[in-house]
Amino acid sequence: VSLKRVSIIGLGLMGGSLALALKRAGLATHIVGCGRQVLIDRAREMGAVDSGSASAAEAVVGSDFVFLCTPVETSMRLMREIAPHLKSGALLTDVGSTKQSFADAAREIFGAQAAARVLPGHPLAGREVSGLEHATADLYSGSVWALTPLDESSHESHQQLHVAIEALGARVVVTSPEEHDRILAYTSHLPQMLSTALALVLERRFTEKQDPALQIHAGGLRTMLRLAASDPAMWEQIAASNAANIAEALECIEHELRSLRESLGDAEFRKHFEAAREFAKFVKS
Amino acid sequence: VSLKRVSIIGLGLMGGSLALALKRAGLATHIVGCGRQVLIDRAREMGAVDSGSASAAEAVVGSDFVFLCTPVETSMRLMREIAPHLKSGALLTDVGSTKQSFADAAREIFGAQAAARVLPGHPLAGREVSGLEHATADLYSGSVWALTPLDESSHESHQQLHVAIEALGARVVVTSPEEHDRILAYTSHLPQMLSTALALVLERRFTEKQDPALQIHAGGLRTMLRLAASDPAMWEQIAASNAANIAEALECIEHELRSLRESLGDAEFRKHFEAAREFAKFVKS
Repeated sequence: VSLKRVSIIGLGLMGGSLALALKRAGLATHIVGCGRQVLIDRAREMGAVDSGSASAAEAVVGSDFVFLCTPVETSMRLMREIAPHLKSGALLTDVGSTKQSFADAAREIFGAQAAARVLPGHPLAGREVSGLEHATADLYSGSVWALTPLDESSHESHQQLHVAIEALGARVVVTSPEEHDRILAYTSHLPQMLSTALALVLERRFTEKQDPALQIHAGGLRTMLRLAASDPAMWEQIAASNAANIAEALECIEHELRSLRESLGDAEFRKHFEAAREFAKFVKS
Repeated sequence: VSLKRVSIIGLGLMGGSLALALKRAGLATHIVGCGRQVLIDRAREMGAVDSGSASAAEAVVGSDFVFLCTPVETSMRLMREIAPHLKSGALLTDVGSTKQSFADAAREIFGAQAAARVLPGHPLAGREVSGLEHATADLYSGSVWALTPLDESSHESHQQLHVAIEALGARVVVTSPEEHDRILAYTSHLPQMLSTALALVLERRFTEKQDPALQIHAGGLRTMLRLAASDPAMWEQIAASNAANIAEALECIEHELRSLRESLGDAEFRKHFEAAREFAKFVKS
């Protein structure tokens, strides 16, 4: 399979890694990068892209596959900007963390053609670092890559994208944009909120950061604070674009925490811990 | 420094590792292990102990330092059992996760002698695995070991224990039993409750464990569920012995989660994330 001419809009960790991975796997004949000039220059030096343009509208001209590798809200704005410049038959996809709002924007911009022209995607391969300097051809290898078609219709370009993603070593899971966002609120956004809330509690409790008390902790604290170091700008966009689902997930955890608190020292407490352990072991395996 | 004759009551991960570490560092002339006969046999084979007894009262006779390496409630019961059999001048310590209830029990059992005879301890070196088969001489190396004296008086045996622990590669932090438990509610027990609550939410949300939706998650989920696999029996005792402090910490996180939920999509949200990130980066370094 070859995606032939590919445009990658956004040369950060996700876009840069995608360009490197496509190059290494020989899945594109030509890759156009779009970003600030300094990033284009750097991406060319890295052998990630063949040419570049600081204008997204220019960068997509003649390409068969276009990947929007920018934060959710930016990708929606750029989709509107590039739509008139796409080659007929070109497939547009993205790597955003939420899919419902992007799918809605696609329907609005492309109308009856939306399901054929746009296949929203989400590779679950983020890291706490960002930027082209951390890009690696291995980022997507072994990860899950969600594809969320706008309807059930089948299209050859969709199939090509699916096969190319698997050729990068990722595992494709297909679901709807709506269901994707409902799931991610629990499996990704909720874990992030917990880590952030834990950091906030500790920050208020130990106002003096040099407090020697903070030395008294085991490995579990660092583990649970790892996600709290994630990019606030990215999470602001995720939260805004999936607020209702995240609010529901937060209400669930507030309920569970209250149950644990009310069961401290009684028999229910151990039952909670046993059920949690069984589930955690299942996810681990 | 040498602790001379040492008794280790409880041959699980903590006790077994302590015996191996003391042996390797040459910090004891003789180590008596106490546990079920099969564990004593195994510990002798491993070269962790020199002799053993299934009776704690017998195992402590003639020893200069006695380590209670059992869960909190068991250690309190055993302290009462062995107290009449301790050699004059022997120092008793433990490795329990909470210190206030153990310190209270020591005061009740030893009266005016309590502060001299008992120095409660807590090496922050647990793992999600348990049992002698996971014991390793390296468990305490690089970890923090809290010592929580019952008062401010100084004793030579306390100083010897302090030096021996540092000779194992651990860093000693001294605080009061009360303050220890207040701190740990935030730095250890709260992270554990969050991981357990997350597992409970996901278990209820994805009732069918084979649900393909559960595949759609990034590394963050596994990270946040890691602690949920911890031993329920151990946590039941920790929760019972530190219930008031844990309840306070849980109320704090419930409050922060509600704040995050109410700020989804507004400017406060980003401020929360920025404060959390700054704190997380600090703890990491």
